[in-house]
Amino acid sequence: MSHLYAVIMAGGAGTRFWPASRSDRPKQLLPLAGKGNEPLIAASVRRILPICPAERVWVVTARHLTDATRAVLPDLPAENFLSEPAPRNTAPCIGWAAAAIRRRDPEALVMVLPSDHFIGDEPGFRAALLRAVEASKGCSVATIGITPTRPETGYGYLEKGEDLGAGIRAVHRFIEKPDLARAEVFASSGQHLWNSGMFFFRAGEMLGLIRKHLPDLAKGLDRMERAAALGDEAAEIDNVFPTLPSISIDHGVMEKAERVAVVEASFGWSDVGSWQSSWELADKDAQGNAAPQSAVLVDARGNLVSDLRTKATGQVIALVGVDDLAVVLTDDALLVIPRSRSQDVKKALDEVKRRTK
Amino acid sequence: MSHLYAVIMAGGAGTRFWPASRSDRPKQLLPLAGKGNEPLIAASVRRILPICPAERVWVVTARHLTDATRAVLPDLPAENFLSEPAPRNTAPCIGWAAAAIRRRDPEALVMVLPSDHFIGDEPGFRAALLRAVEASKGCSVATIGITPTRPETGYGYLEKGEDLGAGIRAVHRFIEKPDLARAEVFASSGQHLWNSGMFFFRAGEMLGLIRKHLPDLAKGLDRMERAAALGDEAAEIDNVFPTLPSISIDHGVMEKAERVAVVEASFGWSDVGSWQSSWELADKDAQGNAAPQSAVLVDARGNLVSDLRTKATGQVIALVGVDDLAVVLTDDALLVIPRSRSQDVKKALDEVKRRTK
Repeated sequence: MSHLYAVIMAGGAGTRFWPASRSDRPKQLLPLAGKGNEPLIAASVRRILPICPAERVWVVTARHLTDATRAVLPDLPAENFLSEPAPRNTAPCIGWAAAAIRRRDPEALVMVLPSDHFIGDEPGFRAALLRAVEASKGCSVATIGITPTRPETGYGYLEKGEDLGAGIRAVHRFIEKPDLARAEVFASSGQHLWNSGMFFFRAGEMLGLIRKHLPDLAKGLDRMERAAALGDEAAEIDNVFPTLPSISIDHGVMEKAERVAVVEASFGWSDVGSWQSSWELADKDAQGNAAPQSAVLVDARGNLVSDLRTKATGQVIALVGVDDLAVVLTDDALLVIPRSRSQDVKKALDEVKRRTK
Repeated sequence: MSHLYAVIMAGGAGTRFWPASRSDRPKQLLPLAGKGNEPLIAASVRRILPICPAERVWVVTARHLTDATRAVLPDLPAENFLSEPAPRNTAPCIGWAAAAIRRRDPEALVMVLPSDHFIGDEPGFRAALLRAVEASKGCSVATIGITPTRPETGYGYLEKGEDLGAGIRAVHRFIEKPDLARAEVFASSGQHLWNSGMFFFRAGEMLGLIRKHLPDLAKGLDRMERAAALGDEAAEIDNVFPTLPSISIDHGVMEKAERVAVVEASFGWSDVGSWQSSWELADKDAQGNAAPQSAVLVDARGNLVSDLRTKATGQVIALVGVDDLAVVLTDDALLVIPRSRSQDVKKALDEVKRRTK
């Protein structure tokens, strides 16, 4: 599809992977899932290249992350990196990318994809992307909904609406992260899907939706567009972008737009939300340990050892007689926590912050 | 007591404190018990100074440990360090020290003390030392036996013999580390004491015992003595010491000597045999954690955090939701192990050795 473009959203910070993730080293730059040392964002780009060549892959990231992000994506053109001077949530991010891409190709079809998710079945994933792009041609915005496999309370859900034909459904409504009781209903209803956070649209259509539902954002994008026409885009972005309304594309556009379509799919998807899911997605030995070859594990089962230090220390990591722990090493921290308590990482981070105030 | 000398035995290597203890950084050089960062050997010297001034405290250590040992005992005279060119167990060590001290003071009374034990009640300990020195005047060798407080299988035992008066008993026999059933008998018999590994004797008497029971050792000591008289001791030690019989003072002398006396005492003694005992002897917070102030402990109980790194890394150590672990950091290793499995440290060390072969 020669008009197909991808926008990888890579602005997130995320505290759930402390001490690995930090404001200057967010989750997408880390190898938190799957084999080897591939950062999540590198995997996110690699797996779409068979359907979308590098020159049509764009990345939106924060100003202070741009260099580090480019470093792990050396095959993308420098001009495809959009560097946000301030975080304004996803609607300004997507609006800016849509405008920039439409300027290059007025007929652009855009896939907006997260930078920090895991995909188990990559061919199945690409097939679903192409189905969603097709769906987007006949509606305002399309998304992908994942068939739930468990009553997950960490994800948002979509409720399926009318049948639009060709296996495509309208989205009846978006549902925030539910409690367990509701998640159990959703997981078995057959009418609910996990919200994958992926969006598919024609660039011009998205800009029209923004003009209709988020006029202040549209005005800001117009100013940036005029500056771009005058060859003065960089300075105007610094002026305008921080003044844009901070709002998510879900609340700002998706929930208001008519004819939002959802393509249902299953391709081993995870948002890699915690050390627990990092362990689940990792290659493990016969004892269920996900650890570097160099780690010494004696009578230890089900542990995650994540050594994300950038400096070679020669330090041996030895676990003896412990089960189901996450042991994470970075240059500036060591964390030991039961995998099952991964969500409590934030408590340690809060305490570290309190002390360094 | 102006003829009182102390010999601190500091030759041990020990693998039970891996990764902290290594051949070049043995247990006695590490702060493994009590408050602050005082190495065990520094505490061993400090607590006897009220009864034995620094100029009469001698230290026997391995050649390769001499510099490191002197560095933590800056107040002792350089000439009081005896540096073994090869490990020959405790009988040659004690024989050499007895000969060297007798040369300085023919009437010397010698206390041989371990370098790597913990003492809870230091005044009580000093009182027991003085009682044992007194006892040694009227017998061949005296020792201190600790009143057992539990059926410990990690210690050797003494069985009390005839009453020698003044609260002193003869040693009926020495008993190797028992199994639990025997330890339970010993702990409640009233007739058994823990063998503290401390020896008290007149220097000349000990040399006489060695001549009688270990004639080969006596001959070697004679050669070293003649060389010392000629001012040529250093070279002769290198020649002779490695040829001396490798035998413990317990087997070589104590078990053969007549009139071995034991002074019974209780002063909160531990041989600091494992990370478990290091935790038991450490200052702990209200949640039972023994950890540096800098460590972040969230909902964690009963843990030992031992940070023995020599290089400042600024690395925060965070434990969240874990109980009763030992987490040990050194420059070259990280160990995570349940305290209760401290004895399995050796398994990790064996694996590390296997890999680096």
